[in-house]
Amino acid sequence: MSDLKNDRFLRALMRQPVDTTPVWMMRQAGRYLPEYRATRARAGSFLDLCKNPDLACEVTLQPLDRYPLDAAILFSDILTVPDAMGLGLYFAEGEGPKFERPLRSEADIRRLAAPDPEQALGYVSAAVRVIRKALDGRVPLIGFAGSPWTLATYMVEGGASKEYAHVKGMLYDRPDLLHQVLAVTADAVTAYLNSQVSAGAQALMIFDTWGGILSPQCYREFSLQYMARIVDGLTREAQGRRVPVVLFTKGGGQWLEAMAETGCDALGLDWTTSLADARRRVGRQVALQGNLDPCVLYASPERIRAEVARVLGEFGAGPGHVFNLGHGIHQHVDPSHAGAMIEAVHDLSPAYHG
Amino acid sequence: MSDLKNDRFLRALMRQPVDTTPVWMMRQAGRYLPEYRATRARAGSFLDLCKNPDLACEVTLQPLDRYPLDAAILFSDILTVPDAMGLGLYFAEGEGPKFERPLRSEADIRRLAAPDPEQALGYVSAAVRVIRKALDGRVPLIGFAGSPWTLATYMVEGGASKEYAHVKGMLYDRPDLLHQVLAVTADAVTAYLNSQVSAGAQALMIFDTWGGILSPQCYREFSLQYMARIVDGLTREAQGRRVPVVLFTKGGGQWLEAMAETGCDALGLDWTTSLADARRRVGRQVALQGNLDPCVLYASPERIRAEVARVLGEFGAGPGHVFNLGHGIHQHVDPSHAGAMIEAVHDLSPAYHG
Repeated sequence: MSDLKNDRFLRALMRQPVDTTPVWMMRQAGRYLPEYRATRARAGSFLDLCKNPDLACEVTLQPLDRYPLDAAILFSDILTVPDAMGLGLYFAEGEGPKFERPLRSEADIRRLAAPDPEQALGYVSAAVRVIRKALDGRVPLIGFAGSPWTLATYMVEGGASKEYAHVKGMLYDRPDLLHQVLAVTADAVTAYLNSQVSAGAQALMIFDTWGGILSPQCYREFSLQYMARIVDGLTREAQGRRVPVVLFTKGGGQWLEAMAETGCDALGLDWTTSLADARRRVGRQVALQGNLDPCVLYASPERIRAEVARVLGEFGAGPGHVFNLGHGIHQHVDPSHAGAMIEAVHDLSPAYHG
Repeated sequence: MSDLKNDRFLRALMRQPVDTTPVWMMRQAGRYLPEYRATRARAGSFLDLCKNPDLACEVTLQPLDRYPLDAAILFSDILTVPDAMGLGLYFAEGEGPKFERPLRSEADIRRLAAPDPEQALGYVSAAVRVIRKALDGRVPLIGFAGSPWTLATYMVEGGASKEYAHVKGMLYDRPDLLHQVLAVTADAVTAYLNSQVSAGAQALMIFDTWGGILSPQCYREFSLQYMARIVDGLTREAQGRRVPVVLFTKGGGQWLEAMAETGCDALGLDWTTSLADARRRVGRQVALQGNLDPCVLYASPERIRAEVARVLGEFGAGPGHVFNLGHGIHQHVDPSHAGAMIEAVHDLSPAYHG
């Protein structure tokens, strides 16, 4: 494997000095890019694209060819893990992800087992290897997975949900069953992330998209506890370098202190918490990644630049900040606006370093 | 008007001693009740039901006939205000609310004007009068409106939204235009709430359903500022009694201190903030209303009782708590489960008073 030519992202996650604040975008390989839509059309279905290492590599690299990003992120989907657990993932056109066999009965749950990632998710390890080779050390590659709680919402509901009636009914009525789902899923995610590191992932991120719909005590018991268990079980060094781990709970701004206690290296933040506030609360323990409102990219390049300046100013001087959106980039954003954001980060951030 | 036989709700909102914690449920007159569905079917459309004072009264009273609730809330919809502003509200079956004429151009916005509530929303004042008469002093009647920001999201998007592209695009690109929408809407809401008080509403609640999607500084500038302006302009006494005002920003748990500074009497809380935490932060300034996760009502009556006990214990001893769900009751909840919650509040809360 080649040496890393740009390690700003890894250094910032470890709160080490950098010359410029590194920047990447959640969902940077996605539908807002015409070249992504073209590859996606060639691939067949979204899942076909995820399962084809060469095409997954192609879309992973597309945003890097367009913008001077400081990190690449594996193109995949958080729901590949429950798919590998036998739930039968499919995407109904215009309806989002669905499972053919959601977990509804105690028998379903007792049968659940963590898959061997090399067997059931070998296409992901293969994609990581192909992408690392293609990157040739340009920037680090991020591996990722969904949090057990977030995965469980889909596994129990059978797809996306508005009211979370089934999974929250289980949480309140049969917490023992939900804990069983979460424990098996945490094992599956741990093995899966470690297989990504073995294949070459240089940093990891855990997406807890739905942790924010829980009450404070349920968040700790049903989401954070299992993320902490995963962090404990991860390979934290590979090829002589630390593999930093980022935790991101959307809507988790009230619980940063507890998140920082898990032993992760960094927290991802959505835009509802000020970086100044977050840094004051947990900046001595962890780096912070975020947190521009993705809707800022609907505004003009001048306004985007002003908002980037505001976010950089909120974090302030010194290391420990990775610039990102507070959630995935929206599909109807003009790609040149994403470019304006990235350019502004690289132009304006050196003043905060060195 | 008759004397009030049960004033626990009003007393708790003013942090005065009560014998039992008062309880009501957001959306208590709603689709989970078969008697509501029957009236709704007779009325024709949802809007026909809102606009018919006798039927609005009928559904307002239905939950009170079923449960020993401590407050009634006017049956209406937050979008009647923009409808009265000429946007043409309609409900497409299974699709939620829509506007025929959303605000998209500068010309649309310049034309916007606050309507005279007695003319354009006379059916609401009429409903308040009919309901007060029918209540005959059993419990107080709550009037309500949407926050200007929440109304603006629908007015600009033309309906419910997932990404808020138009309204947030306007926020970031043309804040002057959005401020114009919000200022006119704040005037409209102030006059509308005052007309409800004139007609007999005994407490008021402002629903800021979408304030939680904003960044901290945007929340202050585009949502809280206009709620504070409304609070300043409200009639705060009627028939020799204070008319308390409750502010509720869903997802606003990070901003309680700023909300308490508006001069409101109470804050509504969703379930993502612990009442103990909220009381410590703002309990000397305001009462607190909430905050059971509505999904708890999917669990068994025994579990519901345990969760009610937990919420009461989090607030602790002394006045200033109105028990409620953290958001509207879900339509698929078994009505007997709502009954179990209300019974548990009345059974378990006296230990915290007197």
